[in-house]
Amino acid sequence: MTKSVKTALYNQVFDYVLLRIQNGEWQAGSKVPSIRIMAESLGVHRLTVLKAFQLLKDKGYVHVKDKSGYFVNKTELKKEEEISSFNQPKVYSYVQNSHLSEIHSEDVKYMFSTSLIDPTLLPNRYLSQHVKEIFDRYPHLLGTYAPVKGDAELVNGMSAYFYRHFGFDIQKESIMITTGAQQGIDIIAKVFVQSHDYVLIDSPTYSAAVDILRNRGAKVLPVEITKDGFSIENMEMLMKKYKPKLFYCNPTFHNPTGYTIPIEQRKQLAELAEKYQCMIVEDDSFHEIYFNQAPPKPIFTYDTGGYVIYLRSFSKYIAPGLRICALLAHPIIIKWLVKGKALADNGTPLLNQKAFLYYLTSERVQLHMEKLRIALQIRKETMEKELSAQSFSWDSPEGGLNLWVKLPEHIDMERLKQKALEKSISFVPGKICNPLEVNIPYLRLSYSFLKEQDIKEGMRLFKGVFQAL
Amino acid sequence: MTKSVKTALYNQVFDYVLLRIQNGEWQAGSKVPSIRIMAESLGVHRLTVLKAFQLLKDKGYVHVKDKSGYFVNKTELKKEEEISSFNQPKVYSYVQNSHLSEIHSEDVKYMFSTSLIDPTLLPNRYLSQHVKEIFDRYPHLLGTYAPVKGDAELVNGMSAYFYRHFGFDIQKESIMITTGAQQGIDIIAKVFVQSHDYVLIDSPTYSAAVDILRNRGAKVLPVEITKDGFSIENMEMLMKKYKPKLFYCNPTFHNPTGYTIPIEQRKQLAELAEKYQCMIVEDDSFHEIYFNQAPPKPIFTYDTGGYVIYLRSFSKYIAPGLRICALLAHPIIIKWLVKGKALADNGTPLLNQKAFLYYLTSERVQLHMEKLRIALQIRKETMEKELSAQSFSWDSPEGGLNLWVKLPEHIDMERLKQKALEKSISFVPGKICNPLEVNIPYLRLSYSFLKEQDIKEGMRLFKGVFQAL
Repeated sequence: MTKSVKTALYNQVFDYVLLRIQNGEWQAGSKVPSIRIMAESLGVHRLTVLKAFQLLKDKGYVHVKDKSGYFVNKTELKKEEEISSFNQPKVYSYVQNSHLSEIHSEDVKYMFSTSLIDPTLLPNRYLSQHVKEIFDRYPHLLGTYAPVKGDAELVNGMSAYFYRHFGFDIQKESIMITTGAQQGIDIIAKVFVQSHDYVLIDSPTYSAAVDILRNRGAKVLPVEITKDGFSIENMEMLMKKYKPKLFYCNPTFHNPTGYTIPIEQRKQLAELAEKYQCMIVEDDSFHEIYFNQAPPKPIFTYDTGGYVIYLRSFSKYIAPGLRICALLAHPIIIKWLVKGKALADNGTPLLNQKAFLYYLTSERVQLHMEKLRIALQIRKETMEKELSAQSFSWDSPEGGLNLWVKLPEHIDMERLKQKALEKSISFVPGKICNPLEVNIPYLRLSYSFLKEQDIKEGMRLFKGVFQAL
Repeated sequence: MTKSVKTALYNQVFDYVLLRIQNGEWQAGSKVPSIRIMAESLGVHRLTVLKAFQLLKDKGYVHVKDKSGYFVNKTELKKEEEISSFNQPKVYSYVQNSHLSEIHSEDVKYMFSTSLIDPTLLPNRYLSQHVKEIFDRYPHLLGTYAPVKGDAELVNGMSAYFYRHFGFDIQKESIMITTGAQQGIDIIAKVFVQSHDYVLIDSPTYSAAVDILRNRGAKVLPVEITKDGFSIENMEMLMKKYKPKLFYCNPTFHNPTGYTIPIEQRKQLAELAEKYQCMIVEDDSFHEIYFNQAPPKPIFTYDTGGYVIYLRSFSKYIAPGLRICALLAHPIIIKWLVKGKALADNGTPLLNQKAFLYYLTSERVQLHMEKLRIALQIRKETMEKELSAQSFSWDSPEGGLNLWVKLPEHIDMERLKQKALEKSISFVPGKICNPLEVNIPYLRLSYSFLKEQDIKEGMRLFKGVFQAL
């Protein structure tokens, strides 16, 4: 077992106990189950439980009574989660603080934290013109709901689009439309994940996916992604041992590392998913953002058992304002996800679906994508050129929107972040991309949002801040 | 305690056990906790647990070993939830079947099941014209995300709108925009409800709200709504005893009954919410759909402690295709809900928010609403006239979109539904509106979707079907 998985388990035991204390299942004064019982029921080593208990004690959640075990303390809620003062409601939230959205809320000039595409690179004009026209075609467009699973015309358009790209038929029963990939992940979690379920997640990862899975009460096991992909051996061990419900991954121009999982592993992953009945949730938001050559086909295309759910968001690189994502899966899976979508919002707004349709069938889109790739590649190279210095290292990505930069181990990341902010620079500290929120000496720099001149200026300022530390 | 609450508890114990069996926490062959322990830990009477255990036994989930208690059976999954055959994924879904969406999926001519407004009554033309213009005003509209909590301009517009309607200031920190009321309920559940939490819900109710709360693992306690409102005494007893996290209700032109909670009770409810720290989720989707006089002010306007969350959907009566709802709450509550919204979909699409803005400031909207009220009142009266017969009874609603019709007790609802479908007529059986899914001799007939002539024809056919039974 790798080191990161061990840390994961110890963290999971911690979370398991804390959740029960916080939701009142284990009341103040009551005895926590013994180390032996916890280890057996959670299927982990006793030392792992002991470590978690010690941390719970250090943080003031439990106390030890001589020889009789661990007992729940009275202070049940974390300070940051309970806000109680005069005339304010006392509330307890099951949603954790999102560090990513806090970083994005900073109003800075050099937003290297934002993994979005500069709006001026997007084909707003074409689309606006098109949207104006659709009202003439659909006079009652604003007066009607779309079907929960998606507008029939858009679903057909998606079916044709994926046929062209994957080379095989995607039936309309295998397609659902969601309001962005984020909603897709949220609905999958709602339908297939609940308390006590294990889930696998690539590490580093997209932190909002972890937040969603944690909110469902899942126990998160990280799976390391490297330049060479995943360790299939480790993956099989985890699937065998923990019977996870799903594996969330972003195998193509991965956020934040930019890595792409090789073809052989894609086949192996599809096989493992079926063998261990562990659904793979393949988030493929960056598939079209490549620089030199198109990436390998998705894991989804190797699936024969119906255990891969494929999310292709089009928001980022065509029209973030529309929020359109295609979710592909076996019709049985879609059937359940449509029920989850009904609970979530009763269907993506019809206007947005009709507006998006144009893009799937237009030649202009292809032209736009080619221009966009060139523009992003230039921005990436601009950032890499400015960043080249002995203290930084990174693997130059073949696609995507980010550089995943390794810093010297000794760097105080929090201080770097603060000092950078003083110069109006933001970035994403590695910790935020770590499923266990452990400090790691990495940071994510996005090259997609700023113009070249701003990238140059910002990177020079950033190097100054870094050297001053 | 009323009879319905007793039934609720017994159902909750049943659900509690079933969930644990289904998610594998209680494995086949293992012993279910004793009746005494279950009764103590769930805070219910032992006889209530016994009843639930007997039902579990009858349904084949557990068996009794002589004198040593109840044990989990091997058949863990319900047939309808597990679909396993050749080349199909084996999946277990935490989302239940939605009977409402099944009814809506029937393609019939006389859709009395659809609580939506006839699209031809909506002001599509004005709005379409306006949407065309907004692209000139916001050239990068489709290229940018909206802030998670909502577009600043729309939030300001909402603030001014509610100031005019409530007569007091609603700060922008108290407003969040969601994609319809449905998403509002879903986000509230995500943030404030988890396994083991009790929640109160009006009965009969909007079934999708129950589905959402059940999916979070909540224990649902129904609160009966009558012509006179709620029993405040019963409510206080429930809040005191079960410490519910929230009370979901629709106190104005209630769906499905059409009842409106009187003003004195609104004040009392706001006080109870604060006293017992039980948040009231006030779904006020029908506030503007009144026939003779405007309804009393929302419970939200009587709240001083920050324990009322107010949902005002505008979708139904202005532009269902846009899916826009305002969520009002104390800024502390909004702060948490915005985090939940970030997980759900990262923000409602900007195009829809900008498109909707027009309505809040336009005089045409007022004119539209007046016309809409008259049209709906005529349709209601048309339905009532056709329906008048000795075997039906209902309280004529002062607003909303539905008649809640009582049938003679002996009627076989399932048979009535089937026979009606044969004549291309759909309605919502009372059971679907019952939070415990218990059969009740009521049905919901919506008069808002069909034109007068179709209402007449459909009702006559329906009476024929009814009399033939």
